[in-house]
Amino acid sequence: MEKRINSLVDQMYPSLQEWRRDFHKYAESGWVEYRTASKVASQLAAWGYEVKAGREVVAEDARMGVPPQEFLRAQEQRALSQGAVAEWLPQLSGGFTGVVGILDTGRPGPTVAFRVDMDALDLQESGELDHLPAAGAYASVNPNMMHACGHDAHTAIGLGLAYVLSQCKDELHGRIKLIFQPAEEGVRGAKAMVEAGVADDVDRLFASHVGTGVPLGEVVCGAYGYLATTKLDVTYRGVAAHAGGSPEEGKNALLAAASAVMNLHSITRHSGGNSRINVGVLEAGSGRNIIPNRAAFKLETRGDTTEVNEYILSRALDIIQGSAQMYGVESTIEIVGKAGSSDPSPELLPYIHAQAGKVPEVTSVVESISAGGSEDATYLMERVKQNGGLASYVVFGTTLAAGHHNEKFDIDEEVMKIAVKTLALCALNIHELAAPIMADAR
Amino acid sequence: MEKRINSLVDQMYPSLQEWRRDFHKYAESGWVEYRTASKVASQLAAWGYEVKAGREVVAEDARMGVPPQEFLRAQEQRALSQGAVAEWLPQLSGGFTGVVGILDTGRPGPTVAFRVDMDALDLQESGELDHLPAAGAYASVNPNMMHACGHDAHTAIGLGLAYVLSQCKDELHGRIKLIFQPAEEGVRGAKAMVEAGVADDVDRLFASHVGTGVPLGEVVCGAYGYLATTKLDVTYRGVAAHAGGSPEEGKNALLAAASAVMNLHSITRHSGGNSRINVGVLEAGSGRNIIPNRAAFKLETRGDTTEVNEYILSRALDIIQGSAQMYGVESTIEIVGKAGSSDPSPELLPYIHAQAGKVPEVTSVVESISAGGSEDATYLMERVKQNGGLASYVVFGTTLAAGHHNEKFDIDEEVMKIAVKTLALCALNIHELAAPIMADAR
Amino acid sequence: MEKRINSLVDQMYPSLQEWRRDFHKYAESGWVEYRTASKVASQLAAWGYEVKAGREVVAEDARMGVPPQEFLRAQEQRALSQGAVAEWLPQLSGGFTGVVGILDTGRPGPTVAFRVDMDALDLQESGELDHLPAAGAYASVNPNMMHACGHDAHTAIGLGLAYVLSQCKDELHGRIKLIFQPAEEGVRGAKAMVEAGVADDVDRLFASHVGTGVPLGEVVCGAYGYLATTKLDVTYRGVAAHAGGSPEEGKNALLAAASAVMNLHSITRHSGGNSRINVGVLEAGSGRNIIPNRAAFKLETRGDTTEVNEYILSRALDIIQGSAQMYGVESTIEIVGKAGSSDPSPELLPYIHAQAGKVPEVTSVVESISAGGSEDATYLMERVKQNGGLASYVVFGTTLAAGHHNEKFDIDEEVMKIAVKTLALCALNIHELAAPIMADAR
Amino acid sequence: MEKRINSLVDQMYPSLQEWRRDFHKYAESGWVEYRTASKVASQLAAWGYEVKAGREVVAEDARMGVPPQEFLRAQEQRALSQGAVAEWLPQLSGGFTGVVGILDTGRPGPTVAFRVDMDALDLQESGELDHLPAAGAYASVNPNMMHACGHDAHTAIGLGLAYVLSQCKDELHGRIKLIFQPAEEGVRGAKAMVEAGVADDVDRLFASHVGTGVPLGEVVCGAYGYLATTKLDVTYRGVAAHAGGSPEEGKNALLAAASAVMNLHSITRHSGGNSRINVGVLEAGSGRNIIPNRAAFKLETRGDTTEVNEYILSRALDIIQGSAQMYGVESTIEIVGKAGSSDPSPELLPYIHAQAGKVPEVTSVVESISAGGSEDATYLMERVKQNGGLASYVVFGTTLAAGHHNEKFDIDEEVMKIAVKTLALCALNIHELAAPIMADAR
Repeated sequence: MEKRINSLVDQMYPSLQEWRRDFHKYAESGWVEYRTASKVASQLAAWGYEVKAGREVVAEDARMGVPPQEFLRAQEQRALSQGAVAEWLPQLSGGFTGVVGILDTGRPGPTVAFRVDMDALDLQESGELDHLPAAGAYASVNPNMMHACGHDAHTAIGLGLAYVLSQCKDELHGRIKLIFQPAEEGVRGAKAMVEAGVADDVDRLFASHVGTGVPLGEVVCGAYGYLATTKLDVTYRGVAAHAGGSPEEGKNALLAAASAVMNLHSITRHSGGNSRINVGVLEAGSGRNIIPNRAAFKLETRGDTTEVNEYILSRALDIIQGSAQMYGVESTIEIVGKAGSSDPSPELLPYIHAQAGKVPEVTSVVESISAGGSEDATYLMERVKQNGGLASYVVFGTTLAAGHHNEKFDIDEEVMKIAVKTLALCALNIHELAAPIMADAR
Repeated sequence: MEKRINSLVDQMYPSLQEWRRDFHKYAESGWVEYRTASKVASQLAAWGYEVKAGREVVAEDARMGVPPQEFLRAQEQRALSQGAVAEWLPQLSGGFTGVVGILDTGRPGPTVAFRVDMDALDLQESGELDHLPAAGAYASVNPNMMHACGHDAHTAIGLGLAYVLSQCKDELHGRIKLIFQPAEEGVRGAKAMVEAGVADDVDRLFASHVGTGVPLGEVVCGAYGYLATTKLDVTYRGVAAHAGGSPEEGKNALLAAASAVMNLHSITRHSGGNSRINVGVLEAGSGRNIIPNRAAFKLETRGDTTEVNEYILSRALDIIQGSAQMYGVESTIEIVGKAGSSDPSPELLPYIHAQAGKVPEVTSVVESISAGGSEDATYLMERVKQNGGLASYVVFGTTLAAGHHNEKFDIDEEVMKIAVKTLALCALNIHELAAPIMADAR
Repeated sequence: MEKRINSLVDQMYPSLQEWRRDFHKYAESGWVEYRTASKVASQLAAWGYEVKAGREVVAEDARMGVPPQEFLRAQEQRALSQGAVAEWLPQLSGGFTGVVGILDTGRPGPTVAFRVDMDALDLQESGELDHLPAAGAYASVNPNMMHACGHDAHTAIGLGLAYVLSQCKDELHGRIKLIFQPAEEGVRGAKAMVEAGVADDVDRLFASHVGTGVPLGEVVCGAYGYLATTKLDVTYRGVAAHAGGSPEEGKNALLAAASAVMNLHSITRHSGGNSRINVGVLEAGSGRNIIPNRAAFKLETRGDTTEVNEYILSRALDIIQGSAQMYGVESTIEIVGKAGSSDPSPELLPYIHAQAGKVPEVTSVVESISAGGSEDATYLMERVKQNGGLASYVVFGTTLAAGHHNEKFDIDEEVMKIAVKTLALCALNIHELAAPIMADAR
Repeated sequence: MEKRINSLVDQMYPSLQEWRRDFHKYAESGWVEYRTASKVASQLAAWGYEVKAGREVVAEDARMGVPPQEFLRAQEQRALSQGAVAEWLPQLSGGFTGVVGILDTGRPGPTVAFRVDMDALDLQESGELDHLPAAGAYASVNPNMMHACGHDAHTAIGLGLAYVLSQCKDELHGRIKLIFQPAEEGVRGAKAMVEAGVADDVDRLFASHVGTGVPLGEVVCGAYGYLATTKLDVTYRGVAAHAGGSPEEGKNALLAAASAVMNLHSITRHSGGNSRINVGVLEAGSGRNIIPNRAAFKLETRGDTTEVNEYILSRALDIIQGSAQMYGVESTIEIVGKAGSSDPSPELLPYIHAQAGKVPEVTSVVESISAGGSEDATYLMERVKQNGGLASYVVFGTTLAAGHHNEKFDIDEEVMKIAVKTLALCALNIHELAAPIMADAR
């Protein structure tokens, strides 16, 4: 059966490339992946998957950092003009761009889920000819949207996996669940899918990522140490006044923000682990001689553990409100992104190790690495683990032309082969993994 | 009659000197003027004045910056040992060291009041022999209490005036009221006497001061522009914690105070006039490696007008509370001193000018000057003016050995003659001043 | 002769309106008044004035707040397309948009100068029909440039005055000098004309303004109390770094700016007069998770006197540099505007009073008012006064549709009549003013 | 031989108690351990040790946080009056209270050193009778000096060890070196002994501590993770001025300090490990209405590694100097304590484990624990390790009446038996430890 999978994937490699380049060219940022999601939904349905999309799999109030309605509407039009599958748009409309495909084998066994993120970054792609997508005419045509983190490949891998598994349905056990998630950048989308219940019946979860500094041919069975994080947008609204003529009539939002910034960075460390805080952007005021009546700033907190992050967040909220009180300005605090910390289930690592070892292109398998940054797949992982399931975050190495989030980011597409093969084997052999499944309890 | 007054004052000059040097030697700071006040009360009674003292003339809750009970008790003992008049102490006990003497002529006419402040500064007097009080053995024997602002002379002038007027009773009209006030330094005492009603029946009020840069022989009829001011003591209480081991358990009172200090000094100017703010003292923390759980700071606000000062004060309170909220510390804010702004009644200036002109030792009379600093006589002046009366703040020039509040401050005692004579004439001729009096309305 | 002037001005009123509306429609902001200045130069030459323009009258290095070269070039093209007089453009090119017209009567007498400012504000004019210029189709066609302070009327008045005086040349004495200044908004242009020497030979200077709250028909002979001011643009450049992965590699320009802002607002008051400081605009950082490597802020200082302003400025520079040192960031500080304080010469006020009194439309003449805000005419006034000459700042009242710097600002054009008549009389009768002139010393 | 040691120690236990209680009663804080050090020196000499003391073993310029000369002199007098051994005082005078005792066996073998710290804390000991030293009349008689960290026991253990080893000299190899160090509290003394060369010839170093949360009967072979730390005292000197009358003449040291405090706490985290910063004490200003001309604050930095600590320190110095520049105040920065991070040599741990296992009273031996806080024994350990030697930090558990640094801190004295026995065995069997020694290379 491993051979069959190898051969299926090798045959479909041109499709993987085509899909990835198509998604790359029509890069769509978080919550407006209308074209991408509609194509995914359409394909899954064609291959016999039960497809759920939109509000069914994305809880409205749990979404974070959703763009304004006008932008959503304009982007939906843009997607349509770029070839979105029209029949799926009504379900996705309004920023509900999540899709879930389910394949029930009818045979007993666990529910095995794969998480795939689809969104692009807010970044203008390089047009220089030493950048392969530019030279190959598949650089992003959408201004300030670019797949500079590999989610185009993730989506293609997800489709490839869906196809391969649909072809091997008779060899599989339990249920297969492919979770295509919007808005991973800014850790905005996973929580809404978890709140909609998509992880509630999952026994085994495989989240994955390409690149991240791991060389091509190497597979990491579990990345641990993702930092818990919260992203906040703060707006202060005061009262403008002429700075020369009647300064006392003003309420100075810029001063309130400067004070908040100073004090936010002063938050004491936590003995429970590393923490971070950063006010990355601040804009305030309208004219040199006007007491500034508006200030807006963007910040993020991080912590080695969810507890440490919550401590920093709680102190930050006190400071943001206290500084507003100091200056008599009104504050609006919006949480626009959030992720916890969730480490891989140790029981799953040797299993993944064994599957990766069967893939011909794999030259090295590593048990685990320490991750930097944050990931909202942790929401899905935590839910699965809370329910007694197992989850891991697999990294598939690839050669990078430039670092993640760089305007010349590019991957070696070979990684897609390795990823589809490894993940397909993870699904195929899942009955070999001796561990309780919820199905037993059901 | 002017001659009679001249001659009376010339004769009593040795007594004026003796009184002044006695008060100088036994300098008593605010709210503990037990010896001074008891001597004043005793003399006034001896000269036929109706005397009110203690709680009758000092409203308990309106007192500001009263020292702790222990200190009050110890000082009362000290005063007794230094010759306080024992029979008056029970009335003054507990920090109620105000005295009012009333002389009713029985003849129709206004109530004419004189305000006299009696307290010394918290300052160690110089013991060097180029300092006349030290050379003359009447430097203060009370540690860290010194008459470095001339209130010793004020008290002597008040007594001299009381004596002269008692001798001229048959030539006077209306009622004479001598208001001996405690705790002018730090602007703590006047409000309590006003709240006790001592200014409610006053038609004409003469507050006065010696020195302030005016040369000997010159009389200023009205000083205007005293800054409204508020004195605040703030304490923050947080939670201590080991700064290395568990910093997150602390609530940092020092950081809260540093933030408050920065923001207090940032309070925007007011277009209605000059303002000031100063945090003059800050003490916080107990050990280098402990998150500081306590911080205390002393500040003052000032404004050209009461409105401007209230604006600064109101903003300051917001900031002090906002900073406490930022750091989750508890704040205690105590107003330990307060004075408004009150300008002289213009109608009174020519009258004072005329009286001063009759005093042989006066070489120059100036209508008005701009004052610096703050004075709580403004409370009495405002009350009188609100009731339809007239009030002024008269300055009697004198040669100074060193500036006010300096450890070698000293005056030319000749000024006492000029002051007693001028103020006595102000009382004597008050019926010549054509202006409505409350008595008319009564 | 007064009658002749009255009649000349009455006849030319339609031209005044036409000029003003033309300048209003083609509003040009500071240093790009190419169209306005070329038209002024062309007219002055046509009326027999010796005309100096560009670098002759604008010292290159003393200009402040000059826009980038690209903008200057684009605006020159724009001006040409809007009817600028091509032959004058080469002289004005590169942001040298000052013009001086000189009329030498050949008769002995002082050099009498009038200062006229020509620039518009950076403001988008209202297009609503209750705004007269919009209804009359002469609202500004240049985006974000609007005559919302009356300099369009000033330029028209200057032209009208030039014409009238050219017609009365035989009745005049001494020399007439009309100084058309660029970039008064932001107090950027006067210094460069002073440094070029345009005020060095002036014996009598009349600066003027319309509106400012004074009613139509009223003339104010001298506005005093313009605040000395400095406008500063500050940029901090640090080093970006990933806020989660390697924060220690960054140098945080946003924190440096927040610290500077806090401390700038904390600068202690000066006992020599009122002061102001305001950081009106701050922009910093590029992304939430990036240590901000750039911050830019705009501030202004003000003082009742030049000394007070210099004190605030000097402290501000210490703080800006100290904060940069704190964070290891590089700072660039550009002074983009500056004006001193200069009060009218008292000797000139009765003279102006007399001339205004002769104008039929004038219903009230006021000796002086206290001005708010800042004006760089003070540079010219100071230079004239330093040389022994006399200078004043005359205000011609007018009805305003909305306040200065408002998008619906508009004047009653009648004021132009009053202004031209009054100023023409000031030139005509200047020999009646008995005061030394530099010409005597020459 | 183990038996001999057991028996020797059991016999001398009353002496250990007597010594410990004597040192406890006459507690001496850092750099004034005149009585303690003179007694140690005298005993070592009596037992046949070569004794070095004072400047021989304490490098003058490398001492940190030395009290003022006056205090040193007064304390030397105090020590003499409390029974210091007079003949040793001249060597120790002036704050050179280190002592080293050397026992050369004449037999080949490594130089084995033991580090003993002798100083008390700045703390007032409890006088309540539930505090054993108070009940037993051996509470500290020196005000504000208390052995609340166990260094009294350390000194007694050091003496006991010296005695036992002197008795077993014929069974020992190599050289024994007992290093009695002053001023460990505040991490002030070790560096000066290292700079004087006392660790240069050491092949095996055993530093040790009692308590720290480890139970009685348990021995920890190596404590790792002491935080690198720096202790700083900062003073700002500005210029005083009257806050109402002439604030612009002041240079505000309190504001400079508040700004420094805010920015110090804002120092960005380091990705290389945990860090800490704390301003624990701040005192500034002299009077409410005076611009504060003086501010002093105490801070400490810490880091998981010396590199992280140096990063925080370097940033702190920039901020302290930048804030001084902001306010034009002069800054004085004194490093009053410093320690690095140094982990135990792994090769030494099994050896210590084996020795501790031979001690009858030991019930449990633990390989290693993670330490909190900081220790300047790390300086000695680093020097030994740099020279190719081995070093560890051994913890001997004991029951504590209250936590370290508490006014009721007390130990179970039984621990002294365990410590002397274990350390004596470590010396005795050192030839069994197969590891290179410098002697081989000599």
